[in-house]
Amino acid sequence: MSDKALVLFSGGQDSTVCLAWALSRFQMIDTIGFDYGQYHRIELDCRQKVISEIKRKFPLWKSKLGSDHIIDLSILGQISQTALTENISITIDDSGLPNTFVPGRNLLFFIFAAAIAYQRGFKNLVGGMSQSDFSGYPDCRKDTIVAQQKALNLGMDTNFKIITPLMWLDKAKTWKLAENLGGVELTEIIIQHTHTCYKGNRSLLHSWGYGCADCPACLLRQRGYETWLRTDS
Amino acid sequence: MSDKALVLFSGGQDSTVCLAWALSRFQMIDTIGFDYGQYHRIELDCRQKVISEIKRKFPLWKSKLGSDHIIDLSILGQISQTALTENISITIDDSGLPNTFVPGRNLLFFIFAAAIAYQRGFKNLVGGMSQSDFSGYPDCRKDTIVAQQKALNLGMDTNFKIITPLMWLDKAKTWKLAENLGGVELTEIIIQHTHTCYKGNRSLLHSWGYGCADCPACLLRQRGYETWLRTDS
Repeated sequence: MSDKALVLFSGGQDSTVCLAWALSRFQMIDTIGFDYGQYHRIELDCRQKVISEIKRKFPLWKSKLGSDHIIDLSILGQISQTALTENISITIDDSGLPNTFVPGRNLLFFIFAAAIAYQRGFKNLVGGMSQSDFSGYPDCRKDTIVAQQKALNLGMDTNFKIITPLMWLDKAKTWKLAENLGGVELTEIIIQHTHTCYKGNRSLLHSWGYGCADCPACLLRQRGYETWLRTDS
Repeated sequence: MSDKALVLFSGGQDSTVCLAWALSRFQMIDTIGFDYGQYHRIELDCRQKVISEIKRKFPLWKSKLGSDHIIDLSILGQISQTALTENISITIDDSGLPNTFVPGRNLLFFIFAAAIAYQRGFKNLVGGMSQSDFSGYPDCRKDTIVAQQKALNLGMDTNFKIITPLMWLDKAKTWKLAENLGGVELTEIIIQHTHTCYKGNRSLLHSWGYGCADCPACLLRQRGYETWLRTDS
């Protein structure tokens, strides 16, 4: 069981780096994605392209990739009216929390992932949460993930390990990790095929990828990319 | 917030007693139910009848009852092929776990309940889990619930209280609690309108309610009822 990992894979930059990280460490890797009727559903379309590009450019990793599981969580769109699910503006409230917050979203993701892993006999769950770049989402914090791991292991009477390789990395270090894991082949996949933009923009290509270059997610990605290039040279 | 409670209400015996318990302690009570394509979907139909009977027989409680939320979790049926979702026999595996086990089901229920409570401004979440009668389900244990409460409060940056009034009560004591809370009016609602039977049998009426009188859930309910009558007299 310990050489098998299930990766929470959305098709974004962070989860693509996590997938590469898992492919470089484990022998058998499944992926899981969540379809919750989000406005940038385009991210879910990107994930298929990222997987096929990884398989094309990395034959060893291709041999380790197993099943891809898609969970229909359209109910989340009904529970939480946010900019992720509706075409409304991104705002930040007084506590610093963006209105893209779906309460407990990452907790839900891990419980569904664990239910799949339980039945597939996988021990490791890998997610791209980062406390360094957590944008105010409390369910990205290390303490939250540790607490959810404990609840999962008690509730399923098992011994899952939740691994978050990006927990203490900012976006610049995440770009660097991608380069270390898969070189320019991987960073090119990230630039060309992963999606980050809150507004779903896939028409403008920048050095750091597609996006509106204006929403908080684009700005974070752009700044991280530029910092990586600057500190790397 | 502290006088508002959201009750996990399935239409079964235990959650009906929990609903009465909450109605006797809090000022505003919402209910939440989960539709996960279960074989005994009849339980979900029973819950509407139980709510209307409680409103009819308890005018004070009627004035406290707010919204009823139904969450579509049909995805659970795809994740876990068990006797709850398919017409197959109930069996107990070597570890004592019945094959009705959906891994982490109660964890999921609490996260969805908390997402609703978060937006409604409710502080208390009430569930009918019981470690005394937990049938081997690890997600009914007190330790699991405590861990999930911690993960929820960290992940949503809030201060929910998960309350499980039946945690240390066996089925006989649960019947007794129902009598204490609502007298014969409540125990009659439980007998006539709540549903427990794994096989979905609503044609045979016994002194303790409808059911096949043969599956583990019926036997537990029947034994509890008979023990309650015997020890009460």
